[in-house]
Amino acid sequence: GNLLVVPMDGSHWVDLKALAQELGRRGHRVTVVIPEFSIRMGPGKYYDTVTYPVPYTQADIDSIIAANKDVLEKSTLSFTDKFRKIASFLHSTAESLLFNASVISQLEQQKFDAMLTDPMVPTGSLIARKLGIPVVNLLRGIPCLMDMKAAGCPSPPSYVPRFMTGYTDKMTFRERTINTLIALLEPLMCKLFFWHFDNISHQFLGEKVGIAEVLAESDVWLLRIDMTLELPRPLMPNTILVGGINCNVRDALPEDLLPWVSGEHGFIVFTLGSMVSEMPEEITSVFIEAFRQIPQKVIWRFTGEIGGSIPENVKIMKWVPQNDLLAHPGARAFITHAGSHGLYEGLCHAVPMVMVPVSAEQPDNAEKMASRGAGIVLNILTVTSENIVQALNAVINDTRYKENVKKLSELHKDRPVDPLELSVYWTEFVMRHKGAKHLKPAVHELNWIQYYCLDVLAFLFTILLLVVVLTVKCLKLCFGKLGRKRKQD
Amino acid sequence: GNLLVVPMDGSHWVDLKALAQELGRRGHRVTVVIPEFSIRMGPGKYYDTVTYPVPYTQADIDSIIAANKDVLEKSTLSFTDKFRKIASFLHSTAESLLFNASVISQLEQQKFDAMLTDPMVPTGSLIARKLGIPVVNLLRGIPCLMDMKAAGCPSPPSYVPRFMTGYTDKMTFRERTINTLIALLEPLMCKLFFWHFDNISHQFLGEKVGIAEVLAESDVWLLRIDMTLELPRPLMPNTILVGGINCNVRDALPEDLLPWVSGEHGFIVFTLGSMVSEMPEEITSVFIEAFRQIPQKVIWRFTGEIGGSIPENVKIMKWVPQNDLLAHPGARAFITHAGSHGLYEGLCHAVPMVMVPVSAEQPDNAEKMASRGAGIVLNILTVTSENIVQALNAVINDTRYKENVKKLSELHKDRPVDPLELSVYWTEFVMRHKGAKHLKPAVHELNWIQYYCLDVLAFLFTILLLVVVLTVKCLKLCFGKLGRKRKQD
Repeated sequence: GNLLVVPMDGSHWVDLKALAQELGRRGHRVTVVIPEFSIRMGPGKYYDTVTYPVPYTQADIDSIIAANKDVLEKSTLSFTDKFRKIASFLHSTAESLLFNASVISQLEQQKFDAMLTDPMVPTGSLIARKLGIPVVNLLRGIPCLMDMKAAGCPSPPSYVPRFMTGYTDKMTFRERTINTLIALLEPLMCKLFFWHFDNISHQFLGEKVGIAEVLAESDVWLLRIDMTLELPRPLMPNTILVGGINCNVRDALPEDLLPWVSGEHGFIVFTLGSMVSEMPEEITSVFIEAFRQIPQKVIWRFTGEIGGSIPENVKIMKWVPQNDLLAHPGARAFITHAGSHGLYEGLCHAVPMVMVPVSAEQPDNAEKMASRGAGIVLNILTVTSENIVQALNAVINDTRYKENVKKLSELHKDRPVDPLELSVYWTEFVMRHKGAKHLKPAVHELNWIQYYCLDVLAFLFTILLLVVVLTVKCLKLCFGKLGRKRKQD
Repeated sequence: GNLLVVPMDGSHWVDLKALAQELGRRGHRVTVVIPEFSIRMGPGKYYDTVTYPVPYTQADIDSIIAANKDVLEKSTLSFTDKFRKIASFLHSTAESLLFNASVISQLEQQKFDAMLTDPMVPTGSLIARKLGIPVVNLLRGIPCLMDMKAAGCPSPPSYVPRFMTGYTDKMTFRERTINTLIALLEPLMCKLFFWHFDNISHQFLGEKVGIAEVLAESDVWLLRIDMTLELPRPLMPNTILVGGINCNVRDALPEDLLPWVSGEHGFIVFTLGSMVSEMPEEITSVFIEAFRQIPQKVIWRFTGEIGGSIPENVKIMKWVPQNDLLAHPGARAFITHAGSHGLYEGLCHAVPMVMVPVSAEQPDNAEKMASRGAGIVLNILTVTSENIVQALNAVINDTRYKENVKKLSELHKDRPVDPLELSVYWTEFVMRHKGAKHLKPAVHELNWIQYYCLDVLAFLFTILLLVVVLTVKCLKLCFGKLGRKRKQD
């Protein structure tokens, strides 16, 4: 087949790249469209790239990433300021591609069989609609649950906890009330979240179609979730669970790391994800102090400055082969921000975790993992060296953590088809059959009044009311007459 | 593993047997519990059987089956009479097993890892609860949708058409109204359907637990449906689609059939399912007359009497290897009652169909297949020889039917894992992990008021009302004072 891939940057790229590579390796023609500057996107062995110019430089990107250490400082840019900054970066990237007529017409000429994209940033979805090609989505989820809505999956607020609430599927009345309120606000949240993209959509497509409608046309949804970490919820036949997709995508460790993974005490992997690679000095020094007190080696992804000396057992790297390290039998613990990627990698290789969630859904993720006894959560803003040493000692030496994560890992890996294999299958399916029409629910033909059958219920209620009123009137009339008759007698 | 199987009789047995055989072949210890007399259940190469006495004989069963030709006669037993007769047969079978203390205690001693059953008749489900073993269900569906309810799958009446309505997922307002009414009546229908079993349950379990609660404990649901015939609807992570499970379960054709499947014109397979094996003479003669006029050979499953001579191209058999015949390249058409088994077998081997639905969900099935251009529906009560000849000629000689069924068949078979393989996988999964706890939704912890968040909505509405009332009062008070002040001025 002939596949077009429009990826998202950052950690989202990891899985999309794994899938694009695997499809290319199997003989499909895979074309990946990437901006000339990005956090980590780039060429690969098994796919071609098409690049497009963007109105920013690599330095601009680096400064955005560097600014992310702000989340670890107490007084910083406000949340909305930061959100606005990242959003404008995403919008400018999207516009640079969508309104680059020559790239778009170049893509159009290639008659692709399908589009593979991450619709969290719906650039690929818009191109697919414009070019009329079927769509396979690979994503973790969209905060306002637009993905579930677009796929037609019901999400009853009574047992489907909302994003960032930290609730489980068993909620108290208070929790259910808050969850329901959030659910009621979701359409508004989606509107705000995709406000600018709705405008881009109108402009690019030349029709009054919003992102919600564009996403609803997707053929297959590959969801990077798995029920060992998530909670059972209704899904549609075209939503396929592929959490842990990159578990088996592995390379040999680079030579210079070999001395660091050997030794009787093993080693610890420490990363905070692709969006946070620096930390303020007061937090850095807390970790340095802790690492001085433990026998394990530490491999730490960190791009910032470290004031003072670095202990002998600590290796600082600008980038680490995280999955390959976690897969090594010497890995004793994983200090992570609890992003979904790291969590699934740790789960896959059964490495107990010390979690220091930073933002977004990370606290939720961390709580879920901790509740299964597979790790410990620390607050990165208030953490002390003792906390860290204690937590590391616990997950490394208290065998219960290792046992729990091992059990969970076995359950996670016990699936009929490897998630990468399954993702390949469904992408090929969409290319083979030019879509997956028979799997798409008819939900989108209904407005919300029809969907909830409110019109039908109103109609039935009206009839019931009429029947009751008429019966009462009739009875009154009859009894009235009877009464009069009696009086007359 | 050590697997207990409590099957259902009739066509339901076909798939359960296929799965039990395959699990036995792979080295599991499989024990199938069957009554001493049955329609078609019996021993197999790869499983042991435990039989229990029943208060009826083989002759009684044969007479019930024979009476089924009544559905094809215009004046017969009423529907409720027949339903009552079959129900009492099922109840007596269930009671014979459940209240046979020695068989039950014999089963208890064997410490099974899992129960495989068809919960349409919930005997196996009750035993599993009593013995505390996890459950795998294999079924097509329960008419009142109790299966979906027990599995926790939402079934919005706005696009999930109800059993026997013949509706699709795109309904008019009138259809949605009727569909909603049926949905509202479903709890009542389930109560009636399982009335006697609820009583058996109380008696057998010694606790006030109904069938609905017993079924809700099931670990995995293997649903014999596929989206090439069914319509997309919400499902849960533990509901696995295995429609077409026995497609690849094949044997060589018996020698005496070989002359019947060869020849340039090919052959036609004609069966009406395990529950209807006879027909009244006026219908039989219509088919005989039609078969005289076509060049194809006809292999016909029929146990009744045929008045008059049988044409040379027709072979009548008491039992036919239906799947093996349909798999033969000489099969040109399939005359079927459109039961789900036959339909999936015809679909699997891409044989165009002439469908004469008899009862239950068969008219629905037939309409779905016909709407996809893969066959023609005839009314068996009013059919003429010309109709039959015309329909057979169409599906055999008009290539569109063959093309459509071929396309549908390709789509049907294009699944990541063969449905039998998938069924084996999930049954083994449940045995390995002693259930599938992490896949079960938390729906059953909620009553229906909580499920639909009606309590939360009432609470929110009350607050809203209070706020409005207080605001209005406040404003009135303020304006009132203002008014008085003005007057004073």
